[in-house]
Amino acid sequence: MAVVAGLSLGAPVAAVAATSLEASAARMESRIQALSQFGRNAEGGVDRVAYSEADLAGRAYIIDEMKKLGLEVRIDTAGNILGKRAGNEAGLDPILFGSHIDSVPGGGNYDGDVGVNGALEVISMLQENGVQTRHPLEMVVFSDEEGGMPGSLGMSGRFDPEQLSGVAHSGFTMAEGLERLGGDPARVNEANRKGQLRAFLELHIEQGGLLEQKALEIGVVEGIVGISWWKVTVTGVANHGGTTPMPGRRDALVGSSQLIKAISEKTTALEGRQVATVGKIQAFPGAPNVIPGRVEFSLEIRDLDSAKIRLVFELIKSEAGRIAAETEVSFDFAPELELLPAPTDPAMRQVIEEAVVELGFSYQRMPSGAGHDAQNLATITPTAMIFVPSRSGISHSPQEYTAPLDMARGAHVLYQTILKLDH
Amino acid sequence: MAVVAGLSLGAPVAAVAATSLEASAARMESRIQALSQFGRNAEGGVDRVAYSEADLAGRAYIIDEMKKLGLEVRIDTAGNILGKRAGNEAGLDPILFGSHIDSVPGGGNYDGDVGVNGALEVISMLQENGVQTRHPLEMVVFSDEEGGMPGSLGMSGRFDPEQLSGVAHSGFTMAEGLERLGGDPARVNEANRKGQLRAFLELHIEQGGLLEQKALEIGVVEGIVGISWWKVTVTGVANHGGTTPMPGRRDALVGSSQLIKAISEKTTALEGRQVATVGKIQAFPGAPNVIPGRVEFSLEIRDLDSAKIRLVFELIKSEAGRIAAETEVSFDFAPELELLPAPTDPAMRQVIEEAVVELGFSYQRMPSGAGHDAQNLATITPTAMIFVPSRSGISHSPQEYTAPLDMARGAHVLYQTILKLDH
Repeated sequence: MAVVAGLSLGAPVAAVAATSLEASAARMESRIQALSQFGRNAEGGVDRVAYSEADLAGRAYIIDEMKKLGLEVRIDTAGNILGKRAGNEAGLDPILFGSHIDSVPGGGNYDGDVGVNGALEVISMLQENGVQTRHPLEMVVFSDEEGGMPGSLGMSGRFDPEQLSGVAHSGFTMAEGLERLGGDPARVNEANRKGQLRAFLELHIEQGGLLEQKALEIGVVEGIVGISWWKVTVTGVANHGGTTPMPGRRDALVGSSQLIKAISEKTTALEGRQVATVGKIQAFPGAPNVIPGRVEFSLEIRDLDSAKIRLVFELIKSEAGRIAAETEVSFDFAPELELLPAPTDPAMRQVIEEAVVELGFSYQRMPSGAGHDAQNLATITPTAMIFVPSRSGISHSPQEYTAPLDMARGAHVLYQTILKLDH
Repeated sequence: MAVVAGLSLGAPVAAVAATSLEASAARMESRIQALSQFGRNAEGGVDRVAYSEADLAGRAYIIDEMKKLGLEVRIDTAGNILGKRAGNEAGLDPILFGSHIDSVPGGGNYDGDVGVNGALEVISMLQENGVQTRHPLEMVVFSDEEGGMPGSLGMSGRFDPEQLSGVAHSGFTMAEGLERLGGDPARVNEANRKGQLRAFLELHIEQGGLLEQKALEIGVVEGIVGISWWKVTVTGVANHGGTTPMPGRRDALVGSSQLIKAISEKTTALEGRQVATVGKIQAFPGAPNVIPGRVEFSLEIRDLDSAKIRLVFELIKSEAGRIAAETEVSFDFAPELELLPAPTDPAMRQVIEEAVVELGFSYQRMPSGAGHDAQNLATITPTAMIFVPSRSGISHSPQEYTAPLDMARGAHVLYQTILKLDH
């Protein structure tokens, strides 16, 4: 109670905060350890793909923790777990916060888990400190973040029922999976909370190495980058690798190599934080003694600004034109995916920054290069994200790691931000 | 008879040769058409892989043609068809000539077939012209050229019995296949003719576009290039394509692209006819949104001179060293295959050139970029090859084509060369 009162008055709180942090770091670590048992694999990470037995068991553990903290728990039609704590002022919309606990196959113990753990920590701190908020508070564990985000899509009324028939990593279709979670696959979009929320906040690990490299404690997320994918097809002339002289060759892989080199160079040279990746490549016919007549490769560009993505793409196309003229191979770019950038709410970002400054933590504004449930919530309510450091920037791997103190700092920022929003 | 007499005296023969050619072009085309029925596919090429029903039927047709021409036909232990025509001087070793009729899957009607057809044509001309040679002549149809060359390897005593258990394109093991042809898989190397042959000659399509481009009628083969293969493994650091900034990346595919570009440039810039090909590539883990941590690609270098192959490889390794230092990825080159160059016999080449000049054909000396049975025969007897043009340099495809007149010119050169060797 002293902490909260102190903070709300803007008084220096470093000493008090430190006391609070010590407690939460230990509790958060013990909850991370407890959750890591569900789906634990030989490498010390988890295989807790959505809808699996491990996912169900992990959710049961979290529901139990939520109930112990006095939350009123329900599952919505999109399979999200929601836990409500009443406010003391009528007519106010709830402040929502949380993340997910499902993992990729061969995943780690921090991606998503830290946000759910942070939400539990916030509730624990509120209980300990006897804080009563004006707004109702709601904690959420989204369903299947890693396999299609039906939870946050449903909650923003944008779920496409065509996804239901897809077979998830668990082996169940998404429809079967959502039923296993207690959702209702026929009514996923009825989980829609548009116009019914004050705000959404997600605490998450960075999944990059920036905070660690710069020895910063908190990342204030400016938004979730847009992602555009193309399938690039490079056409030359297949021929015998032994009998075709070097000068006459129209080698689709040599042309591709020139472009892949140029993609990296041009994207790096441009000012800004845009990224471009070629992750997949195949040469046809694909024999060591045949000059490739065709190559297919993936191209992904990400940035917080759609215009920047277009600019990078135009630069790449212009390089392709130059290389095509030089090497007599042709390039075709077929769009495969376009996820628009999801900027976070400027006012919310400012509230987070105030909280961070008051707590005395070092921080930086940054984009989220990875997708999150927050990008869907951003379409229906003011949304923000808080990042904590990831060791070596590793994620989607058993090597994923965030130190207890880093988790606790993040949870404390989440706690203070919620209280500031509440006032 | 007039033709032969004229040639042996070195008199001008252009008019006589032209008459002879007209006849043989029509006959060769009709035999090519007849042979193309065995294994014919929808695209007008053939699927006549070794040991298949189509291969057996094609061989039966050739054996029949050989017998009609009075040859004494037998199958050796390596499954080769041999047809002998007696000489009139005792104690001389036979002059051997021929090629193969098995195809790659989805192959064409000229690779190998032209050489077998040319051998039949030579016998036909000898019969028509009533020529009796001093040396015995032997025509050969080698077994399974496209799938491991057991025929010519056996005939040079270098067949490795480990090949026998491999499953061929026909679905049979090589052992089963050789038995189907009438060979004896346990005694393949007993087909060895070392010390028993005067010479070997193979007529073949060029399988490249050089003769066509330069409008030349005959290629005099200087040798069959050596072939070296490496598996190149490029190691960087796999990471999230969205959250890893461009400057910190150690992208194995960007490093590979730089090297593949350099391989093409360095090999092209060097004087000579060496070729280097990257035909196969794979990035790991191979997802569009993951920076490749490892790339594997094939590297093939061919040249008539082993020292040149080594030089090209050293240049490539030195480029790899430079790129590794710049991009912080590492390169490993694992040798996978080394076939030594097989130079043809200089005296035989000269005899061919004399025949070509006397016949008034245009020609060029050139390496064979592809492998042939001749490379094995070269280890046991003076060997030479005669090339005829291939349309657009296409081979191993239904689009393979050599004009009847080009085949006939090649057969006529083969005929005259044999007679010159016989004298």
